[in-house]
Amino acid sequence: MSDIIRVTVWNEYLHELENNVVAQIYPHGIHNTIADFLGREKDIHVRTATLQEPDHGLAEEVLNETDVLIWWGHMAHGQVEDHVVERVYNRVLAGMGLIALHSAHHSKIFRKLMGTSCDLRWRDDGEKARVWVVEQGHPIAQGLGDYFEIPQEEMYGERFDIPAPDDLVFVSWFKGGEVFRSGCCYQRGRGRIFYFQPGHETFPVYYQPEVQLVIRNAVRWATPTFTEQRPVLMHSKEPLEPIN
Amino acid sequence: MSDIIRVTVWNEYLHELENNVVAQIYPHGIHNTIADFLGREKDIHVRTATLQEPDHGLAEEVLNETDVLIWWGHMAHGQVEDHVVERVYNRVLAGMGLIALHSAHHSKIFRKLMGTSCDLRWRDDGEKARVWVVEQGHPIAQGLGDYFEIPQEEMYGERFDIPAPDDLVFVSWFKGGEVFRSGCCYQRGRGRIFYFQPGHETFPVYYQPEVQLVIRNAVRWATPTFTEQRPVLMHSKEPLEPIN
Amino acid sequence: MSDIIRVTVWNEYLHELENNVVAQIYPHGIHNTIADFLGREKDIHVRTATLQEPDHGLAEEVLNETDVLIWWGHMAHGQVEDHVVERVYNRVLAGMGLIALHSAHHSKIFRKLMGTSCDLRWRDDGEKARVWVVEQGHPIAQGLGDYFEIPQEEMYGERFDIPAPDDLVFVSWFKGGEVFRSGCCYQRGRGRIFYFQPGHETFPVYYQPEVQLVIRNAVRWATPTFTEQRPVLMHSKEPLEPIN
Amino acid sequence: MSDIIRVTVWNEYLHELENNVVAQIYPHGIHNTIADFLGREKDIHVRTATLQEPDHGLAEEVLNETDVLIWWGHMAHGQVEDHVVERVYNRVLAGMGLIALHSAHHSKIFRKLMGTSCDLRWRDDGEKARVWVVEQGHPIAQGLGDYFEIPQEEMYGERFDIPAPDDLVFVSWFKGGEVFRSGCCYQRGRGRIFYFQPGHETFPVYYQPEVQLVIRNAVRWATPTFTEQRPVLMHSKEPLEPIN
Repeated sequence: MSDIIRVTVWNEYLHELENNVVAQIYPHGIHNTIADFLGREKDIHVRTATLQEPDHGLAEEVLNETDVLIWWGHMAHGQVEDHVVERVYNRVLAGMGLIALHSAHHSKIFRKLMGTSCDLRWRDDGEKARVWVVEQGHPIAQGLGDYFEIPQEEMYGERFDIPAPDDLVFVSWFKGGEVFRSGCCYQRGRGRIFYFQPGHETFPVYYQPEVQLVIRNAVRWATPTFTEQRPVLMHSKEPLEPIN
Repeated sequence: MSDIIRVTVWNEYLHELENNVVAQIYPHGIHNTIADFLGREKDIHVRTATLQEPDHGLAEEVLNETDVLIWWGHMAHGQVEDHVVERVYNRVLAGMGLIALHSAHHSKIFRKLMGTSCDLRWRDDGEKARVWVVEQGHPIAQGLGDYFEIPQEEMYGERFDIPAPDDLVFVSWFKGGEVFRSGCCYQRGRGRIFYFQPGHETFPVYYQPEVQLVIRNAVRWATPTFTEQRPVLMHSKEPLEPIN
Repeated sequence: MSDIIRVTVWNEYLHELENNVVAQIYPHGIHNTIADFLGREKDIHVRTATLQEPDHGLAEEVLNETDVLIWWGHMAHGQVEDHVVERVYNRVLAGMGLIALHSAHHSKIFRKLMGTSCDLRWRDDGEKARVWVVEQGHPIAQGLGDYFEIPQEEMYGERFDIPAPDDLVFVSWFKGGEVFRSGCCYQRGRGRIFYFQPGHETFPVYYQPEVQLVIRNAVRWATPTFTEQRPVLMHSKEPLEPIN
Repeated sequence: MSDIIRVTVWNEYLHELENNVVAQIYPHGIHNTIADFLGREKDIHVRTATLQEPDHGLAEEVLNETDVLIWWGHMAHGQVEDHVVERVYNRVLAGMGLIALHSAHHSKIFRKLMGTSCDLRWRDDGEKARVWVVEQGHPIAQGLGDYFEIPQEEMYGERFDIPAPDDLVFVSWFKGGEVFRSGCCYQRGRGRIFYFQPGHETFPVYYQPEVQLVIRNAVRWATPTFTEQRPVLMHSKEPLEPIN
């Protein structure tokens, strides 16, 4: 592992092309907004990938050179080809970090890694959300106060059908009456996964300093510490100790 | 939920037909040995199902009448049809308990629910295993001493590529030098899952009183407490509180 | 373990004697209100104990005959004598269940078992709380809908300085803008512990059917499954296997 | 937080003075052996402290300048003064990392933070231990193979009476027949805690490269990411949102 963290920001990149409101907020796409603020960090090297590119921009060699993959998708989860999902899946189990943003809760890759439906309660009324830090000492919360607010966000509420997170970092309050486990950490295989709720496409959430801080922290937290090719499955023909 | 726990014991049922050693240990199949000792409990009603039956014996109506499904499979994981796996998967997320025994770690249904490879280290030399109770207060450990021994067992060793269990009940010691997280509890959706390592087909493991005790305890622990048909995914059109 | 669950409901029993509002809501004390609804269950036998009794009503023989201890305290945590705290502590580690209600988060016994400050954010304005079920398949949530409301409750908010719960069952929404992990399960030693936030003394919370249901469920969940006197600390002079 | 990690290595420092075997292995004390290999790291600044110093070498200003405290103690846990334990405890909850080595499982500070007895099974016969990496992707396991061996070690075995670790990194196999959760991570308050079993004083365990690697990794993992003085307990007099 070099000292530079290689990040690939993947975006479905459809809303921005089809919806004027979204186009005005993210004229170059959500992926480029995220790539911009990450790219300003000295220890991070960023590239982007989108659904329409061949292999969705996630060819074998791209993934092999990716330490942390960020995933934003919403309306076209079904268009992501299974062989690409399988490739990403194997890379995560082998050590690559994955940050699933907002509606990526329903992406094929996140559901496959969670093993559950990842269904949730939702409402798209643009209400206020307040993200509470429940694990203040967690690296992903570094630099945050007790909470931060998102003026307008789609409501995602419990029951969120996920496995209990290994670390629960954030829980969000929604004005309309719901709560949501909005920052969830998982170790799966040798890779680390972070799900982060904020980021509905019709609001400028990824321009907010606290949201950018969380994503920067999450990239560093998810950077692989296991980088060998060693298999897990192993026929240990010779016992390490005499068995008779 | 009635007071009777309805258990279905599923078995691949191939080794017993193809291998004399196994046939002598389990003349009526592993499933019937398990069904026998469970069937002696007043609060348990058992049936069995096997790979060769239509729908592998797991038709919709069978699963609808199953509170806890026990799964034993080894050499024919790939022959289990995907639509049956999907059916079992949905039932577990809806509340049904699942007990995955021994080589069921590599079954389609267990891998799908775990979201990982479930690969492990193994050696089939029939060595001694000692199962240590690391969570003595867990309901699945009720009635056990500090440990119990299995005179001859296939070695399964770490790294076991599973999500960290919600509760780790047993860790096994193997004579040849390995350790293994041999009793692992998971909540997935509304269902409870227990993985239990003992039970290689060439040794009479399921006749051992401690192993039977663990399986009985696990059946009671995995019995559904959520039995409604309520969906998780929900569009909450009207906020519960005013949002402006 | 007999089939009858022996519950002791402990209450500080001061607010009810000193404050008219509380006295009108709980004329016989919070402990008797809880004992009343639990006592109607066929499988539960209840007794009560209060601060002013000798040994706070928790003599050795009382605890030895208690399967689950319920604890309500608020203004007089410091008056609970350390030797009684030690006695309760040892009983929990030996297997007794403990249900800590509302302001018992700051009781000596809960803090000692948690190992953290158990500090939190609070506000006593009698606002609406909505308790969301985040783990719908958990036995403590059995019979509940997606959420239930408490019309007026003291706000307890995050950061709640507790160890991450083994199971997080409930998260509460407060009208004033906070969230709170309001239903938290722990295994400590051989005993099970449940913290449940609702129950400020100036509101009739323990008369609410959903709150009573949760407490009944929690009593059954916390009932000991380990009831022997076996020590954990053990000098194993003779190895179980040859070491040379 | 500066870029330099300030480590304080605390040692009881009695065995080395009283026992010739130990004195020959660690002529300058276990603390200085650990300080030596840590001090060779560019990003680590080390100092040491021992029981016999005033305040056991852990004055307020020492702790205030400590990012990670390493603790080794065995025969004199009872001599550690309670006010020093309280001081360390408060610093951990405020963010300081703590690495508890070997028999520190029974230290006052570790037991206070765990909330349990931390009792275990033990045997001092100098048998072989094999430390298995069960969470290969964890930062503390970075650089290790599937396992490493300790030629001679005191046996510590299950049941180890601790809360289930937030992350279980290592499980050890002992020649005499036991297993042990030998690498356990905890978040408590804003601080991170790592318990690591190896290091009986009569064997040269802290000279072993793998053991040194684990301790170096653990120091970096435990380095505080929360460094403010912000209180957790807070009376939030004014609601963040209107409550009527």
